[in-house]
Amino acid sequence: MRRLGVSDARADYLLRLGDDALILGQRLSEWCGHAPALEVDLSLANIALDLIGQATLLLGDAGDPDELAFRRDVLDFRNCLLVEQPNGDFARTIARQLLYSTWQHWLLQRLTGSSDQFLREFAAKAVKEVAYHRELASEWTVRLGDGTDESARRMAEGLDWCWRFIPELFEVDETADQLVAAGVAPDPREFEAEYREALAAVLEQARLEAPADQRPILGGRRGHHSEHLGHILAPMQYLQRTYPDALW
Amino acid sequence: MRRLGVSDARADYLLRLGDDALILGQRLSEWCGHAPALEVDLSLANIALDLIGQATLLLGDAGDPDELAFRRDVLDFRNCLLVEQPNGDFARTIARQLLYSTWQHWLLQRLTGSSDQFLREFAAKAVKEVAYHRELASEWTVRLGDGTDESARRMAEGLDWCWRFIPELFEVDETADQLVAAGVAPDPREFEAEYREALAAVLEQARLEAPADQRPILGGRRGHHSEHLGHILAPMQYLQRTYPDALW
Repeated sequence: MRRLGVSDARADYLLRLGDDALILGQRLSEWCGHAPALEVDLSLANIALDLIGQATLLLGDAGDPDELAFRRDVLDFRNCLLVEQPNGDFARTIARQLLYSTWQHWLLQRLTGSSDQFLREFAAKAVKEVAYHRELASEWTVRLGDGTDESARRMAEGLDWCWRFIPELFEVDETADQLVAAGVAPDPREFEAEYREALAAVLEQARLEAPADQRPILGGRRGHHSEHLGHILAPMQYLQRTYPDALW
Repeated sequence: MRRLGVSDARADYLLRLGDDALILGQRLSEWCGHAPALEVDLSLANIALDLIGQATLLLGDAGDPDELAFRRDVLDFRNCLLVEQPNGDFARTIARQLLYSTWQHWLLQRLTGSSDQFLREFAAKAVKEVAYHRELASEWTVRLGDGTDESARRMAEGLDWCWRFIPELFEVDETADQLVAAGVAPDPREFEAEYREALAAVLEQARLEAPADQRPILGGRRGHHSEHLGHILAPMQYLQRTYPDALW
């Protein structure tokens, strides 16, 4: 098997981070006009907007961002499975956000020291946005977990649903290996313990138990997606596929 | 008939401006994930977000903003008819934005001199956002109008659709009269000529003819809405109406 070069690995890495942001941004934007309070509507829309902005930068460095976002086949998407999970109720959306933003925040902090100029500059900008996403998700987790019986039950269910997608965030395959060796990307395993502790601290404040460990679900980084991704891409891509290059 | 007091008129005025922003923000957010290019997706989402933020401030001064946004009957909405018009294609969305943002920009500039402290401060903040909305809509109007035959045709059709809703923006009824007399609100007729000239200048750059004047359609400010408003409110309100006070 041909050994992957650093520049192939880097291109793959840009897609992984870019697709995470694109797909989570799309998911959050589904709340637009459906959130139960204007404050929530604005918060989720703000996060969606940050993420779509990040995706534009990352996919723009990987190639033509519109081509990559609107015309790529579902099998070529490289996002982790966590971000493509359906919104569910508000509590599950918050659980997904807590798990992802906390991870992204650790990753971006490390990435500000990357040997790659683009990634370094990208991380320096995005880390500030993501600090806010993480804070918001943490606050809502506490508000719901330490709220009514109903809200606590739903928050626990949301965390339970999302928990099995954590291990994928810390997977290291050949792409990651190459980039870690070249100083381009951090090794996520180096911050897994801190990540788990940070989640535990939020859950303690929220008076919630951490879900039991479940069978991990992996594969998103290699294009093995759930049926859900196709349902995100279909409405997003139909216009460009039906009328290529049109602005309608 | 009881003569309207200034404070009733002011409450009505807050709903008018707040509902304009809320409904146009909702309309634009329908493009989320459906715009044909990431740049466009981001621009429209940014404008939507600004407008929903403005609505939150205005409705928050009028009462409980969530109550007003999510539980008010369609007959009690006070937005102008222009903003509730369907998105249509991208060109029609841009035409609607050009006509509204240009008006809103003139209005807010005047409103920064209001005798009402809240409105004065609101306008000082919002006028910067709206200057950008207006610029973006103007640029796209020129890009599409002075583009391909197809884009020019669609831009002309979009303007033609929206044109009959202009007169409502300059209507002065008892509410407006009271507020103009009290120095709270500007008289829109004072800037109608400048508004028409500003539009004409954009259309000239876009190599488009202004649509012929059509029979004006009025009534939004008094709660006479098109069927379209109900279709915006239904998905927006179903959650709060089904599960009052829930965050799901």
